[in-house]
Amino acid sequence: MAFHLLQHDRHAALQIARALEHAVSSIKHCDLCNTLTEQDICRTCSNAQRDRSKLCVVETPADQAALERTLAYRGLYFVLMGKLSPLDGIGPHDIGLQKLFDRVVPKDDAGLLMPVESREVQEVILATNFTAEGEATAHVISQALKSRGVQVTRLARGVPVGSELEYVDLGTIAHALVDRR
Amino acid sequence: MAFHLLQHDRHAALQIARALEHAVSSIKHCDLCNTLTEQDICRTCSNAQRDRSKLCVVETPADQAALERTLAYRGLYFVLMGKLSPLDGIGPHDIGLQKLFDRVVPKDDAGLLMPVESREVQEVILATNFTAEGEATAHVISQALKSRGVQVTRLARGVPVGSELEYVDLGTIAHALVDRR
Repeated sequence: MAFHLLQHDRHAALQIARALEHAVSSIKHCDLCNTLTEQDICRTCSNAQRDRSKLCVVETPADQAALERTLAYRGLYFVLMGKLSPLDGIGPHDIGLQKLFDRVVPKDDAGLLMPVESREVQEVILATNFTAEGEATAHVISQALKSRGVQVTRLARGVPVGSELEYVDLGTIAHALVDRR
Repeated sequence: MAFHLLQHDRHAALQIARALEHAVSSIKHCDLCNTLTEQDICRTCSNAQRDRSKLCVVETPADQAALERTLAYRGLYFVLMGKLSPLDGIGPHDIGLQKLFDRVVPKDDAGLLMPVESREVQEVILATNFTAEGEATAHVISQALKSRGVQVTRLARGVPVGSELEYVDLGTIAHALVDRR
């Protein structure tokens, strides 16, 4: 890319440079969901049309974008901006799980955990990746939230749409069998 | 393959030829499940260790082999040896659905359909491919069997094990959301 720009399109190179500069100075994290945005609160979080009782937990803004493209989800998001990875020394504190817990199970004025019926978030949908780290992250969040009475669900694991069994990996088929509906 | 055999390994070519000849003359379809076998009844169907109350419906022996490799299924199989494909003129009669129905919902001596509790097969697991034809086949079988009181399940559809959401197709994510557990 660098070679192409320097040889054929120096004007575009300057444009990209300025766009990057602008992005670095103006794009920050949403106060509510952590995703990348130019506002204090991102457009999704401030959209009154969204279902505020559902909170979908994803690892990155790219994952959030993938879910948004499906047009199948009308709730809000919480972007972890990472995943648990003990081998790399990344623990629950590094990915801000506490912020998620405080959001889902807020404290009242007396400093006590709010009872289930008066909480805004009624269901947390775990949409972390189906990799080892993503599964571990989902497990930790699920354990913590379930112990506080939150309904926690996980994206279905199974055979992808359009695929032929013969070419699907064994782990996926085994899961699809166990999770049959 | 032909070039390699003729140039480097004519002996192997003869072996393959004889193996193919032997296969063609000795391999037939299992009387019970339709899969390829050298016996009248295949090894899976005649294995007394298998759970005879579960019947898994697959399109081909290759799909059956994929499920067997997971070691996650201990029931029996029914191999359709094809799938519905109206565009190619392949309807329910061409893939022997009647044989499946007669097996799952047998008639008693008086020619009446057996009641649910005295049937051998208690659950039919549809494991046809997640392609358009496979889904159509599953739908037709499901409708027919459910109307006769059979419990019918389908392999879970969802995000494959080990995959990152960002790279999964939209249809699969949408399904995984709807089928969340």
